[in-house]
Amino acid sequence: MTDYPMDDHWHEECGIVGIYGDDRAAEQVYLGLYALQHRGQESAGIAASDGSCMEHHKGLGLVWSVFADPAVMPKLAGHAAIGHNRYSTRGKTTLINAQPILIECRTGKIAVAHNGTITNASQLRREMQESGSIFQTTSDSEIVLHLIARSRGGDIVSSVMDALKQLIGAYCFVFLTRDTLIAARDPSGFRPLSLGRHGDALMIASETCAFDIMGAEYIRSVEPGEVIIIDRDGMQSMMLPGVERKSFCIFEHIYFSRPDSLIFGEKVDKIRRRLGKKLAQDSPADADIVISVPDSGNTAALGFARVSGLRYEIGLIRNHYVGRTFIAPHQDKRKLDVKVKLNPVSGVIDGKRVVLVDDSIVRGTTMRQIVRLLREKGAREVHVRISSPPIMHPCYYGIDISRHSELIASEKSIAQIRDYLDADSLGYLTIPGMLGTVDNPGDYCTACFSGEYCTPIPREFDKYCI
Amino acid sequence: MTDYPMDDHWHEECGIVGIYGDDRAAEQVYLGLYALQHRGQESAGIAASDGSCMEHHKGLGLVWSVFADPAVMPKLAGHAAIGHNRYSTRGKTTLINAQPILIECRTGKIAVAHNGTITNASQLRREMQESGSIFQTTSDSEIVLHLIARSRGGDIVSSVMDALKQLIGAYCFVFLTRDTLIAARDPSGFRPLSLGRHGDALMIASETCAFDIMGAEYIRSVEPGEVIIIDRDGMQSMMLPGVERKSFCIFEHIYFSRPDSLIFGEKVDKIRRRLGKKLAQDSPADADIVISVPDSGNTAALGFARVSGLRYEIGLIRNHYVGRTFIAPHQDKRKLDVKVKLNPVSGVIDGKRVVLVDDSIVRGTTMRQIVRLLREKGAREVHVRISSPPIMHPCYYGIDISRHSELIASEKSIAQIRDYLDADSLGYLTIPGMLGTVDNPGDYCTACFSGEYCTPIPREFDKYCI
Amino acid sequence: MTDYPMDDHWHEECGIVGIYGDDRAAEQVYLGLYALQHRGQESAGIAASDGSCMEHHKGLGLVWSVFADPAVMPKLAGHAAIGHNRYSTRGKTTLINAQPILIECRTGKIAVAHNGTITNASQLRREMQESGSIFQTTSDSEIVLHLIARSRGGDIVSSVMDALKQLIGAYCFVFLTRDTLIAARDPSGFRPLSLGRHGDALMIASETCAFDIMGAEYIRSVEPGEVIIIDRDGMQSMMLPGVERKSFCIFEHIYFSRPDSLIFGEKVDKIRRRLGKKLAQDSPADADIVISVPDSGNTAALGFARVSGLRYEIGLIRNHYVGRTFIAPHQDKRKLDVKVKLNPVSGVIDGKRVVLVDDSIVRGTTMRQIVRLLREKGAREVHVRISSPPIMHPCYYGIDISRHSELIASEKSIAQIRDYLDADSLGYLTIPGMLGTVDNPGDYCTACFSGEYCTPIPREFDKYCI
Amino acid sequence: MTDYPMDDHWHEECGIVGIYGDDRAAEQVYLGLYALQHRGQESAGIAASDGSCMEHHKGLGLVWSVFADPAVMPKLAGHAAIGHNRYSTRGKTTLINAQPILIECRTGKIAVAHNGTITNASQLRREMQESGSIFQTTSDSEIVLHLIARSRGGDIVSSVMDALKQLIGAYCFVFLTRDTLIAARDPSGFRPLSLGRHGDALMIASETCAFDIMGAEYIRSVEPGEVIIIDRDGMQSMMLPGVERKSFCIFEHIYFSRPDSLIFGEKVDKIRRRLGKKLAQDSPADADIVISVPDSGNTAALGFARVSGLRYEIGLIRNHYVGRTFIAPHQDKRKLDVKVKLNPVSGVIDGKRVVLVDDSIVRGTTMRQIVRLLREKGAREVHVRISSPPIMHPCYYGIDISRHSELIASEKSIAQIRDYLDADSLGYLTIPGMLGTVDNPGDYCTACFSGEYCTPIPREFDKYCI
Repeated sequence: MTDYPMDDHWHEECGIVGIYGDDRAAEQVYLGLYALQHRGQESAGIAASDGSCMEHHKGLGLVWSVFADPAVMPKLAGHAAIGHNRYSTRGKTTLINAQPILIECRTGKIAVAHNGTITNASQLRREMQESGSIFQTTSDSEIVLHLIARSRGGDIVSSVMDALKQLIGAYCFVFLTRDTLIAARDPSGFRPLSLGRHGDALMIASETCAFDIMGAEYIRSVEPGEVIIIDRDGMQSMMLPGVERKSFCIFEHIYFSRPDSLIFGEKVDKIRRRLGKKLAQDSPADADIVISVPDSGNTAALGFARVSGLRYEIGLIRNHYVGRTFIAPHQDKRKLDVKVKLNPVSGVIDGKRVVLVDDSIVRGTTMRQIVRLLREKGAREVHVRISSPPIMHPCYYGIDISRHSELIASEKSIAQIRDYLDADSLGYLTIPGMLGTVDNPGDYCTACFSGEYCTPIPREFDKYCI
Repeated sequence: MTDYPMDDHWHEECGIVGIYGDDRAAEQVYLGLYALQHRGQESAGIAASDGSCMEHHKGLGLVWSVFADPAVMPKLAGHAAIGHNRYSTRGKTTLINAQPILIECRTGKIAVAHNGTITNASQLRREMQESGSIFQTTSDSEIVLHLIARSRGGDIVSSVMDALKQLIGAYCFVFLTRDTLIAARDPSGFRPLSLGRHGDALMIASETCAFDIMGAEYIRSVEPGEVIIIDRDGMQSMMLPGVERKSFCIFEHIYFSRPDSLIFGEKVDKIRRRLGKKLAQDSPADADIVISVPDSGNTAALGFARVSGLRYEIGLIRNHYVGRTFIAPHQDKRKLDVKVKLNPVSGVIDGKRVVLVDDSIVRGTTMRQIVRLLREKGAREVHVRISSPPIMHPCYYGIDISRHSELIASEKSIAQIRDYLDADSLGYLTIPGMLGTVDNPGDYCTACFSGEYCTPIPREFDKYCI
Repeated sequence: MTDYPMDDHWHEECGIVGIYGDDRAAEQVYLGLYALQHRGQESAGIAASDGSCMEHHKGLGLVWSVFADPAVMPKLAGHAAIGHNRYSTRGKTTLINAQPILIECRTGKIAVAHNGTITNASQLRREMQESGSIFQTTSDSEIVLHLIARSRGGDIVSSVMDALKQLIGAYCFVFLTRDTLIAARDPSGFRPLSLGRHGDALMIASETCAFDIMGAEYIRSVEPGEVIIIDRDGMQSMMLPGVERKSFCIFEHIYFSRPDSLIFGEKVDKIRRRLGKKLAQDSPADADIVISVPDSGNTAALGFARVSGLRYEIGLIRNHYVGRTFIAPHQDKRKLDVKVKLNPVSGVIDGKRVVLVDDSIVRGTTMRQIVRLLREKGAREVHVRISSPPIMHPCYYGIDISRHSELIASEKSIAQIRDYLDADSLGYLTIPGMLGTVDNPGDYCTACFSGEYCTPIPREFDKYCI
Repeated sequence: MTDYPMDDHWHEECGIVGIYGDDRAAEQVYLGLYALQHRGQESAGIAASDGSCMEHHKGLGLVWSVFADPAVMPKLAGHAAIGHNRYSTRGKTTLINAQPILIECRTGKIAVAHNGTITNASQLRREMQESGSIFQTTSDSEIVLHLIARSRGGDIVSSVMDALKQLIGAYCFVFLTRDTLIAARDPSGFRPLSLGRHGDALMIASETCAFDIMGAEYIRSVEPGEVIIIDRDGMQSMMLPGVERKSFCIFEHIYFSRPDSLIFGEKVDKIRRRLGKKLAQDSPADADIVISVPDSGNTAALGFARVSGLRYEIGLIRNHYVGRTFIAPHQDKRKLDVKVKLNPVSGVIDGKRVVLVDDSIVRGTTMRQIVRLLREKGAREVHVRISSPPIMHPCYYGIDISRHSELIASEKSIAQIRDYLDADSLGYLTIPGMLGTVDNPGDYCTACFSGEYCTPIPREFDKYCI
């Protein structure tokens, strides 16, 4: 399995896909997961139902390798399926937390795949343990399954509604029973979830780029608080109790989603280009060329170049054949990781005053190495420009959680960060500047920049571990 | 992974080991599992606790291969550990049912390993599902964990007692919590479980051959209905409500256990030799030599030879390097399986009247091939002698369950079986003859021979599947 | 192992690296191979010498995975090492042809790694077989080793010189003996080879991007016909008999080499940008935006945009997590391969007249799919622009050889290709136009465009196979 | 892959199989290799020809695992095939020396598989290197292929004859060309080789147990010095120049061959039983029971029991599920290896005076552990009896070569060995005693016991290594 040791970015925890009404449901989900691979590379899985029997398969690794054995896909027969890509959040590569999770309960078998983080998970878990439940994983998905199983709601739909009403936090779920597909998005709408169609089949996916590969057309976003039920009788929509305001994750536009996706009703590449343009207006640089940290900074760098009038160049070459690099005891792992992955193009860099655009800085360690590499290749000046505000607070809504101490902007001033990076100048977007690029700025969560969380955060956000 | 396609034998489902009070608990459990590998070859696992943290590792394959990565064992630190070998009972090789299962519940983390079959499992599962439980596996172990978690018993020990009281059927459990090891054997005592000691450490194992490799001395059997609790304060023994009579599995002596083990207070190789002697008395054969089907018939064949005065010879060579044999479409799998695994020694067989001893016959297909092989090598006569009575009924107490239709003795008379095998004569032990070889014949279950089951058997013994 | 089923490109067969005088020679070669991974992904290997003992390790897969086992690198001790990346040229994934090949002969042990194709290999092989040689591989490297072993030249250097003089065709070699590193480039200079330095160590690599990751500085190209000998006494240079004119492979600039490399004395990204500029001059398009096929068309597209004044946009997103995709029987493999790998950004494409830039077209099947995808996303017009002339002839100098019938430009006119691609217009560079972008156009081979081969090509260029 | 760390035995280096005239030649060879697995467990391979094309496949591991991928066998089409099992002789597990080796030379493609050791290999290799040959492996097979390729003999048969005449030492070869199978056994006849038939097909195998599984009947031994050529015209036999006397390896009877094989015209199990009987006559013991070290001592122990009148018992249980055992740093590897593999049956041993029979002692370390285990289980006395004379000299004829210092009998007297083993008594066979058990004692090599080698042994029997 490949891993990506260098990557100094926040990571989405998951991508999810669901489909109902296609004779080759699992194959379609497989393609959808392929398109959502950037949202999670540690494990992948698919559950499928043919109306009477439900099967699932999951494994560690990229989608293509988990399903590389040609004997696997044919076993996932049926007209309905859900799938999941997972990013490891706890440094531990283990199959136990891979999804979908498939269980049997009072109402029969249910499989679930989840993207997000339930902020009252610990409390719910504690309560359910008190009243006799057991937990085999640390996954929020297991919690929602318990809630469904315990509901006295009657049928599966009311049980799911019952369960969801008890959740606080960020979630997008796809559930599969023998004959029903259910998709749900939390009332704040933290994570994106979209609805698509191909022929008679209806599709659900974290991002619309999954629809493109599945040959489906985009219908609309699943609304915040919406629960969509799809079965042989068609599609039905129900709403969970509302919240004061929406809290779309702005980082989906900044970095998480693919630029070819439509997210929260807006095209990611458009927003990302606007972020670059705004950055050029607010933090111009007296320089010769604009380059990006590939591929995360590409689109914003194009926007920056447009507005600044500076030439856009490809100044860093990224090696895509990177896996778990052998590190000798005497070597500096971080330095090596960057060198293995990125190489400056000296013909572009040498003697130039360079604007270097990326989307965000977490610890700053990688950016520091990149600045150093550029200087070694002859860059006269390096002006770092970041197409988002400084990340100063952890995110509790579906991201690989960092502690404050791991966020350089939480510990240092911008000037100090500039010095740490050894950059000639450093420019971030402001929060208002960033919000000016989207249509409905009031609908977004900016907690990681502002510290203003949209939900109560449990004091001890200590992840239990099994 | 190796598999054993030829084997026409009933199979034990599992072997279990536990230890408390050894700084290298997991290493000792590993050795114990090595010795119990014959009880289950599909998966293996160990859970260990150092008093504050509990870790576990499990995988598909033989013990040595599951723990071959040198990075694994060092992670299983602590003074207490349990382990499990599992034999696949449902044709499906899957990690989900591997044990130990480790969960978190009200009283903290618990791991469990199980040998046996809970006959009221379906009913308990149905009841718990009704009241809101979810099931991720088809394992009886998950059921007992639910019962423990739901118990209002206060501490872990009373919860375990509570849970066990609700179980019907055959079980030996080892439980591990952060600071306690608990071992339990059902009141009928179907499966063997022994207690051993090495220095300050106390050990639990399905068979005493595990103690030999662990360097431990045998203390005594865990009694039917006994629950042993071991923690820093030492060992404590409690009893579950009794049953009318004990039901030791006689097949442990006939075939399941290793001849170097002490089971139900008796030495397996002694009983097995007595079975062969009794067989020679009851079903003598006018022949030249006695040979065995290696290795299952070896000890009984020695007994048969002793009493009959016939020469014991090694007439069949077993190939121990056998794995998943490639079978071309045109080949007869069963025939090939036998040929790959066994070869007659023509110098021993040619021109001889042969007594062929084995412990049991399930479907008869393998034995038929062996008789054919012996005849091809010049055997003048082949007299098949079986050191147990005809198996006529399925076992519901911890064995890979067969249907009646898969038991040749359930469908055919002894004369018909002889004809099917193409043997010159066929002799089985009688039930009384068999029981005469053990000290307390009244303590044994003979259901698979007599059909007299010691517990109610649910009409639909249909295994749920996930 | 990942593979890249979609890729409709010619492929370099190999990348090579050598180093002498670094205590961690193998580690450095490993890094160099990492940087040269784009030149070959099927197998990788390293041979190292500490002056008395030579070890080697090779395997199928990417560099990182071949050397992922932490026990491997420490075995490759010594101050001198060579390495090799290989691209499979015969559809057969086999370890037997992996390099370096390590043999023992009269002068001791020799390891060799090779990039290129010896055009008189069949003839040499036939001759040597006639006089008693045996061949275990189909590799040209084995041929040169035989020639060395048969040489009566005295020492290893004269034996190597002897051997090389008999070769016709394209080659860059690195040889390693216990105490000497030898690098050689054919007199025509088809393939690039560079010399670098880091401290006391001297390095050889196919491309200078390897030096960047090794922390080395570029000294100069190994000259066409030059043989460089490096040992404890330093470096020595010898020349093979010259040829009429040089024949640098222009495709190294067009596609093979990384843009951050310096090749044939010129910076690849500069030439590549010039090719795009020239293309814009010669084949302008009345369009709205310029996009590239990532990553092969990126730099040329930037050049095209500059000169044309059209906006450069990122219009296709490439999925880098692609492996051996599961293909169901009913699916169109080629179509799926493209969809899995590339997705148009609808916000960029929709309603636009698009210039689509790539470096070359081999069969045209992939390009046709891409045009279709763009049209589906709303492109009003698609103008395909190729930054090289039509490929009309096979290459016999180190490339995965195609037959004429596999080259669309060999079978169809440009107008026919345009129709096949369903493009609104199609523009290629002319040969003179292409040659105008390099400093010494007379030094380049253009055989694949013009059919004018620089060496005799054996009529039967039939590859022997073992 | 499993390995067998405990085994303190000499090991055969290889087993070979060949077949001509069966449409499923490779399948038959596969079965033959299965039966010969005891002769080599490190690697396995098959080469097959359909008259025009030759393919081969080889890999590390047991036969079943090397050919477990169902895609492999169908590729080995044709009516002729050869196969090979190899035992690693140099502690290094490497694919490079796996056989068959397939090469192309003047006369076309040839594959070869070899059992034995060419004692003048170093000299031949040196000479051929001097005249320009290269060597990629350390295998004797490569040497013979060079000799064939260099022969001016005209056709392949005369070339093979030419080559073989230059060899000194022990060898059995099977060669495969596109249309011919050739088998050869050295004039001294060190290693066994047999000829069999099944329908129109002719078979060659190291041992006749391979014929049993292939459904073939034994015809006769390939004679010492005989070369058998099989092609579409049938079978032809030629003789190499003779030697003074034959030198059959007596150790094939003592330990190497399977007891169900016919070797050198005699049944192995018969000889092995006679060795035990002779041992009982020459070295009787005042004891209660006879047990064997399974499985190597089984047959001799039966013979010992017969003559001595003592009861034969199964006193040691061997665990056949043993692989690469995890060894913690603090553990004694050798001690653990024995414990994991063997366990005494206390009911058999306790209070008894035990005769312990095995076939040979190399270093004595394992036997010492076994004696200790028996004493721990209550054996009152342990009388070790060995069914061969003390091994005092290395073997240079196809065995994993030991140095004198690794042979306990080369360093210590019998009394000293007894003390080292902590045995109550120790008895070996004498050389005449041993030879008395075979029909033609003058035909056997006893060099490892007597030091009288049948061929000149090069002073420096230093194995070159690649």
